[in-house]
Amino acid sequence: MQHIKQYVDQNRQRLLDELFALLRFPSVSADPKYKPEVLKTADYVAQKLRDAGADNVEICQTAGYPIVYGEKIIDASKPTVLVYGHYDVQPADPLELWKTPPFEPTIRDGKIYARGACDDKGQFYMHVKAFELMMQTNTLPCNIKFMIEGEEEVGSSNLGIFVKANKEKLKADVVLISDTSMISMEHPSLETGLRGLSYLEVEVTGPNRDLHSGVYGGAVANPITILTKMIASLHDENNHITIPGFYDKVIPLTAEERTALNNAPYDEEEYKKDLDIAEVWGEKGYTTFERTGTRPTLEVNGIWGGYIGEGAKTVLPSKAHAKISMRLVPNQTSDAITELFTKHFLSIAPANVKVKVTPHHGGEPAVTPTDSIAYRAAQKAIAESFGKDPIPTRGGGSIPIVALFEAELGLKTVLMGFGLDSDALHSPNEKYDIFNYYKGIETIPLFHKYFAELSSAV
Amino acid sequence: MQHIKQYVDQNRQRLLDELFALLRFPSVSADPKYKPEVLKTADYVAQKLRDAGADNVEICQTAGYPIVYGEKIIDASKPTVLVYGHYDVQPADPLELWKTPPFEPTIRDGKIYARGACDDKGQFYMHVKAFELMMQTNTLPCNIKFMIEGEEEVGSSNLGIFVKANKEKLKADVVLISDTSMISMEHPSLETGLRGLSYLEVEVTGPNRDLHSGVYGGAVANPITILTKMIASLHDENNHITIPGFYDKVIPLTAEERTALNNAPYDEEEYKKDLDIAEVWGEKGYTTFERTGTRPTLEVNGIWGGYIGEGAKTVLPSKAHAKISMRLVPNQTSDAITELFTKHFLSIAPANVKVKVTPHHGGEPAVTPTDSIAYRAAQKAIAESFGKDPIPTRGGGSIPIVALFEAELGLKTVLMGFGLDSDALHSPNEKYDIFNYYKGIETIPLFHKYFAELSSAV
Repeated sequence: MQHIKQYVDQNRQRLLDELFALLRFPSVSADPKYKPEVLKTADYVAQKLRDAGADNVEICQTAGYPIVYGEKIIDASKPTVLVYGHYDVQPADPLELWKTPPFEPTIRDGKIYARGACDDKGQFYMHVKAFELMMQTNTLPCNIKFMIEGEEEVGSSNLGIFVKANKEKLKADVVLISDTSMISMEHPSLETGLRGLSYLEVEVTGPNRDLHSGVYGGAVANPITILTKMIASLHDENNHITIPGFYDKVIPLTAEERTALNNAPYDEEEYKKDLDIAEVWGEKGYTTFERTGTRPTLEVNGIWGGYIGEGAKTVLPSKAHAKISMRLVPNQTSDAITELFTKHFLSIAPANVKVKVTPHHGGEPAVTPTDSIAYRAAQKAIAESFGKDPIPTRGGGSIPIVALFEAELGLKTVLMGFGLDSDALHSPNEKYDIFNYYKGIETIPLFHKYFAELSSAV
Repeated sequence: MQHIKQYVDQNRQRLLDELFALLRFPSVSADPKYKPEVLKTADYVAQKLRDAGADNVEICQTAGYPIVYGEKIIDASKPTVLVYGHYDVQPADPLELWKTPPFEPTIRDGKIYARGACDDKGQFYMHVKAFELMMQTNTLPCNIKFMIEGEEEVGSSNLGIFVKANKEKLKADVVLISDTSMISMEHPSLETGLRGLSYLEVEVTGPNRDLHSGVYGGAVANPITILTKMIASLHDENNHITIPGFYDKVIPLTAEERTALNNAPYDEEEYKKDLDIAEVWGEKGYTTFERTGTRPTLEVNGIWGGYIGEGAKTVLPSKAHAKISMRLVPNQTSDAITELFTKHFLSIAPANVKVKVTPHHGGEPAVTPTDSIAYRAAQKAIAESFGKDPIPTRGGGSIPIVALFEAELGLKTVLMGFGLDSDALHSPNEKYDIFNYYKGIETIPLFHKYFAELSSAV
């Protein structure tokens, strides 16, 4: 499509500058100290939607951070695409590991380094700019609605309430989200499933105060020692999760599904080399793709207790803590797993400590159909802009909104992500390739075009 | 001894004010940011020794923090007591748990609350003031030397070098240290043994960067999970340490020693109530006194890895760390145990992570004889000032200097401590009873008196 390439070429620098401005906001939703910055980010997104040509742009207040809404209804008889994204980002620490400041986007060999570069500012902003492109070139073929939230990285806790309360406003035919990855630019892919999440924090209390490890060591249960034994017991020798009932609801993949899944290109030597590990790890009897895409997992996201400062302190601490999350697969539910974990974790606590389990947030797993008009539109759009058909994959991450949309609005979602696993999401030195950014802006109008065409053909 | 009580009564407030001034110095040797304060503390101690009447007071430089020396030689033919203490303190964190600021001494129901109130500022300063008392009342019966160091809480790493280089200067007949506890003021006691120490830091590295726990979780070894499994394996189901060879050198107590040890008053209900724990913990087949006083132990003093900030971050971290220390009993040596731990810890590391073990510092265990002139002098002094004979006990803590003195100077040590286990050493709200402070100042001159008398009687 000539007009697309032309528009992107003519606006190349500005498209990048606007993204950089967006990336400079430290919109960390997990840490209250960034609140003013998160709110400013919402204002910026609203302004950019207006500039792009959206109507009825609103900053919708919630109990937490606001949701930015905007729309362009060209013809009520045409199909409507609801674009979802999030303007909040993960915390940037450990800061010392960033080569350049997380909130000062920097280009190194064709890549934009910044927190949120890929997750999700770089990706949702492609939709704002693709929309501008269609408006400026009079090629918008369908109605479009935007819903950009600010709490995705902390569990989207207020989005459900908003969606329930605004079903009419959000009425659409499909949800389009770019917040996932492709295998590579040579192997474009489309995610057909996402894992759910159950995130908890545990606290183990031993003595009522920190103790001298010489005076009390060996006679009083050390909460760190107890916590390590409790956590260690959560995986057996096959790295199978030991929580009773944890796998009960999991539906085994069919032989065909496993074959299809493992047909996607995967070079284990490359994978290990990229991460500098000698061996992969995981549940016995499954491949890496199966482990990350189709099996539930349990990870310790953080642990702390006792003296963690410089030098040595001979203390037997009063408390030890850990943040633990589980990724869920279709048919498991966040609440049920949270309850199973809590019950089990409390049950394995020895009598000499007190244990507290606090749920943080959760999200439900989801699978997207591969035979829908919307999925076919995405396939055609990618095939045209990449020159080859996308490979269907199962993503390991979680976008709770996907299950929410299906439950509340009866809408299926298309996960048309342009990131790469190597983009270091949630890590220091998160990046997004400039190539992918422009490629997304060029591909998205094709999705709308084919979605409109295939819909009217029905 | 009338003159002692009289002197203390007449100087009660000043004796307290001077200690408060000493406690206001945040002399934390483990944290480089306190360096200027630690050095000021040494100056203060030197000045107070001069004021009390010591000669040849020197601030002796070392590769680390200086050692304050001072002496009073009244007659070369009389015995000489070498008083050891330390002016450095443990870090104060966790700060939020202090009821009043750690470096602003505060009195609550007869107790001085401050970091170092008991360990060891409050205790070594009793000796400075008891020396002043003997000088002012012309009752100093023997020669006295002071050696107050500033690196005890970080392993006294430069003291050995200093002692080796100054054997003549430090020539004495006994070492006297107040840096330990009594069972209670109703049950005065004398420690006859101390445990050694081996302190290490371990680092487990998984992937070369923090990863998104959804994208990689379940397929890449999480260094926290691996570290918890490694630490959990260090104690078996009987809380016996699993490091091969760890107990080889330990000499079992005789039936008599065990009986004597367990005759000391111990109220388990009180012990548990004080710590708010439902059960004690420890190596199967031993009592609490045996576990803390006569058995080697292994404690995790600190652990950290991943995201430990506010809220939730779904990260699979690159690294996890722990600080681990072992308390050693007579016949075990710090270097040998450090080597055994390192070898074992590396040997249990799975191939999918990299493990690094870094020794921090160590100290050798020691047992003090109960039949020496010095021990008997301490017994008589305590019996006179408390009105009952002290109970011999085995301390769980470590004062590496004790073994060092024996090895380098051929001197035995008397551990005449006036603290209490409930003083919260190394913990928030460390305290020292005003009563114990004055009691120490009154008892110490009696030690010197009886030590001189019994020595001349030989």
